[in-house]
Amino acid sequence: MEVRLDPWASAVRVEYEKLFKYFGITPFTAELKEKARKAFGELHPLIRRGVVFGHRDYDKIVEAFARGEPVALLTGFMPSGRFHLGHKMVADQIIYYQRVGFETFIVLADAEAYAVRRLSRRDVINYGLYEYVANLIALGLRKERLHLYFQTNYKTPYYRLLQMFSRRITMAELEAIYGSMEPCKVMSALAQAADILHPELEYFGGFKHVLVPVGADQDPHIRLSRDIADRYEHELGLRRPASTYHRFIIGLDGNKMSSSRPDYAIFLTDPPEEARRKVFKALTGGQPTIREQRELGGHPEKCSVYELFVYHLIDDDNKLRKIYEDCRSGNLLCGECKRLAADLLEKMLSEHQRRLEKAKDLVYEYVEPPDF
Amino acid sequence: MEVRLDPWASAVRVEYEKLFKYFGITPFTAELKEKARKAFGELHPLIRRGVVFGHRDYDKIVEAFARGEPVALLTGFMPSGRFHLGHKMVADQIIYYQRVGFETFIVLADAEAYAVRRLSRRDVINYGLYEYVANLIALGLRKERLHLYFQTNYKTPYYRLLQMFSRRITMAELEAIYGSMEPCKVMSALAQAADILHPELEYFGGFKHVLVPVGADQDPHIRLSRDIADRYEHELGLRRPASTYHRFIIGLDGNKMSSSRPDYAIFLTDPPEEARRKVFKALTGGQPTIREQRELGGHPEKCSVYELFVYHLIDDDNKLRKIYEDCRSGNLLCGECKRLAADLLEKMLSEHQRRLEKAKDLVYEYVEPPDF
Repeated sequence: MEVRLDPWASAVRVEYEKLFKYFGITPFTAELKEKARKAFGELHPLIRRGVVFGHRDYDKIVEAFARGEPVALLTGFMPSGRFHLGHKMVADQIIYYQRVGFETFIVLADAEAYAVRRLSRRDVINYGLYEYVANLIALGLRKERLHLYFQTNYKTPYYRLLQMFSRRITMAELEAIYGSMEPCKVMSALAQAADILHPELEYFGGFKHVLVPVGADQDPHIRLSRDIADRYEHELGLRRPASTYHRFIIGLDGNKMSSSRPDYAIFLTDPPEEARRKVFKALTGGQPTIREQRELGGHPEKCSVYELFVYHLIDDDNKLRKIYEDCRSGNLLCGECKRLAADLLEKMLSEHQRRLEKAKDLVYEYVEPPDF
Repeated sequence: MEVRLDPWASAVRVEYEKLFKYFGITPFTAELKEKARKAFGELHPLIRRGVVFGHRDYDKIVEAFARGEPVALLTGFMPSGRFHLGHKMVADQIIYYQRVGFETFIVLADAEAYAVRRLSRRDVINYGLYEYVANLIALGLRKERLHLYFQTNYKTPYYRLLQMFSRRITMAELEAIYGSMEPCKVMSALAQAADILHPELEYFGGFKHVLVPVGADQDPHIRLSRDIADRYEHELGLRRPASTYHRFIIGLDGNKMSSSRPDYAIFLTDPPEEARRKVFKALTGGQPTIREQRELGGHPEKCSVYELFVYHLIDDDNKLRKIYEDCRSGNLLCGECKRLAADLLEKMLSEHQRRLEKAKDLVYEYVEPPDF
């Protein structure tokens, strides 16, 4: 039986239990959560709520941090569209780890967006600057101990690894991980491994433990990077990166939130009233009629509005639990939930967009765009 | 029928007539030679003698130069061993075109030597600096209008093309050119195309016509670069590079001269007396006995000693023709030829090695080695 994840598919359905069974991703235990809470001062809410549902070697990162060893967070964004709530979830994790004290590496994968997604370089660079970087700044990303760059900026110094790694990986191995390979996928896979591993090099200030928070569909890149780290342990002192895996926020139509279906995604630049309208049209986990809802209760676990609460709109776990229970018991109707979500979202977006206006003027302080 | 050249094979036998027949390489016509002589002031002796035996679009380079348009010479060396007379032939062409007025780009393909030839980075960088660069300087390479760099120097700015090009080439196309592909070959093929085409970019001072002198086995890289140039003409303003093709100097055992068989190669760092001994042991085109040589004459076209005269030791075409005819007619014996070659070679190496000692102190003025 063949089980494979495709990190380049634009929409992904992941059967999460397979990740544990076939790929060796580990669920978070209560002990590990407690250990992380102690080490980091607070546990990230998405781990607490099970949105970040699994990991590889997160325990090692927590222990290294607790011992005072250098740790880094690395993540990448493919700047191929507008920044939406799915991206915000990653941004929230970045900013959390940065605040905790991790050195932070963020790659804008413009080469990949160009080669694999086939966007124009102009669009890719503009998305990178004014969607990704601007929103990250507005969400609280700080310049301190931050390495933020476009892959193809001529000054980006990891080119060497991209070529070096090609020495110790075969096409058969890449195909076992990714399925059939085209040159752009070979390039992209090795670029990802280079992105993930370069913070460990002496050149970048010496070895540090690297944590990569990803969506489950990106696990093939993590596995490749870990294999490559093993093969370069002796020569370059590389060690396996750790990773965490999050569930994707579902879009307002019940599928993965994606900029390719803009009516069902909430973009951080949506005018608040437009976001409000989107929420009111959203697919919920409710029953077809009010009577049935009152009698049978709803299904918050299938509800795109409830997802908004879990991922972005409600910090207080007790409040969230109450909504969950009131929905299940039929006390809460979809209209009420939508109104609450729309109100909270409108407020969040209004405040965010005020910060975003200022953030747009700061992007060049955070990143240097590549020449075209 | 499948006819394919393997640029990564360590020893190569090229049937030159196939190049004309199957690959569209054009022989030099008398008119083109005359045109080049007029434009450049002198024709390169290796073209005159047919060692550089074919080309693609050399006429366009000559015409562009004659019109005063910017032209560049680009070549690469894989620093995987000691610099021998086979490399010197390429160096002589570089230095000729630099003197004629071409802007000069020389790539030290350390990434390729590491990934494909599997040498250590330390060896590759040392070969690059103290064999390739030092010998090039001693042979007359000038710093003016020269771009000389290691592929993996973090400051080398062509990384972008390597990844970009992967968008518009399929694995099937690469396999049609190169045969079965491993990741290191995909990387290497695209790196070659990036090397060859980046001097045309605006970023490097604007479009220039690029000429690439190569051995016939490297033609696959030229064909790939030309295909890619076509595909990026609109987006990046790239145009097809031109190329010339040289026959390889044969080693003293009658096979391609290669650092992997050091007894049959003349290295520019060979102690002159050692080079002398190698020449005396060389395989010639002579007859088994003096009597037969006197009666039947020798075969200079098969003679590794005669090759030394043609490629490196005798500038004067009349002198060379006399040796050829004296050998064919049986007037000249192999011992006499060897003595002449050994004398000329000893003198050449002694003088070169005096310059080389000084050149070694200058390598850092010409090139910045990558960090390890």
